[in-house]
Amino acid sequence: MPEAGQATHKGQQTREEILRAALGFACTVGLDGMSIGALAEKTGLSKSGLYAHFESKEALQCAVLDTAADMFTDLVLRPAIQEPRGLPRIERLFDLWVDWKDETFGGGCPIIAAATDFDDRPGAIHDKVKYYIDEMIGVIARAAEIAVEEGHFDKGLDIRQFAYEFWGLLLAQQHYHRLLQHGDANLLAKRAFDSLVERAAHPSSLS
Amino acid sequence: MPEAGQATHKGQQTREEILRAALGFACTVGLDGMSIGALAEKTGLSKSGLYAHFESKEALQCAVLDTAADMFTDLVLRPAIQEPRGLPRIERLFDLWVDWKDETFGGGCPIIAAATDFDDRPGAIHDKVKYYIDEMIGVIARAAEIAVEEGHFDKGLDIRQFAYEFWGLLLAQQHYHRLLQHGDANLLAKRAFDSLVERAAHPSSLS
Repeated sequence: MPEAGQATHKGQQTREEILRAALGFACTVGLDGMSIGALAEKTGLSKSGLYAHFESKEALQCAVLDTAADMFTDLVLRPAIQEPRGLPRIERLFDLWVDWKDETFGGGCPIIAAATDFDDRPGAIHDKVKYYIDEMIGVIARAAEIAVEEGHFDKGLDIRQFAYEFWGLLLAQQHYHRLLQHGDANLLAKRAFDSLVERAAHPSSLS
Repeated sequence: MPEAGQATHKGQQTREEILRAALGFACTVGLDGMSIGALAEKTGLSKSGLYAHFESKEALQCAVLDTAADMFTDLVLRPAIQEPRGLPRIERLFDLWVDWKDETFGGGCPIIAAATDFDDRPGAIHDKVKYYIDEMIGVIARAAEIAVEEGHFDKGLDIRQFAYEFWGLLLAQQHYHRLLQHGDANLLAKRAFDSLVERAAHPSSLS
């Protein structure tokens, strides 16, 4: 059976190469703009060779979102969770979140980009994007809950409101940094974050 | 010359019909997903008939963004500016901004959708999206400056920070409302807005 094993291994390698190339396209032209023709050219495969690995363009687009989510887990979640529970973990989460997209993709996060593109279009991609964004906001909410448990945030904190405002300041950072190219995008995001944390910790006094 | 005048009038009408249909596509499948073939079918024109009105797909995409921006001016800016200077005007701006997209487009704002799609892609569409988003954030900043002049906001207010956080809470509302379909999206946005305004008015006490 070694030959079958080698074939599977080779198939897995090719699949990963296709995904890497597809992620590159998704980060620049978006999931929708990614063309099977361009992807075939980039990977040196025929279109039917590509379809041997992903049964449809939609299946490939979904796999690209899964890949981006895995990278988010490896590069943001896992390192953040090494920090002590509560405020240190939330601070690390914020720092990593602001930086990971540029370093990883050299373009915007394909999940965020797909959020506005697919919010009106029922289907597998819509469902997957919704799932991952719900999960990411859930990560923020759980981190805030832990900070309440640790006594770093006020017991009366509205966790849902905290997560909403955290999400908003991350989205604005992407606009200011990537589209508007404002050099102080990260500083603005950091100040918004510090104010949010200060209010969560001391609801009756202000930063 | 009446015949030439009629021809021009007819040409203008056709152009507006094309733009209306194109805006419909842009709101659902995005500026990029909009296909000239589907647009020709929708308007009953041939592809070459379409190109008689817009010299390229890019020119049409830019015209769609201009149309959306004109609608924003008519439906958000003009009514908001009817309010007294300062806080009442900012409050009206927020209320209209949260609502106008659904009522107007029945889909997301094509300018916001294009922001993440085109942030990496140099060209006329990128420049136009950047211009309009800069303008929209500028509207928030000017409204905040006026509120400072009127004594509604603190003299030491960081206008740029205020506009950043305002922008973030608008972007998060779009995710929560449209993609995640959370019924309390507008309530979360309103609470974030109220907190922002309270801090702008009274930097040393909290809402």
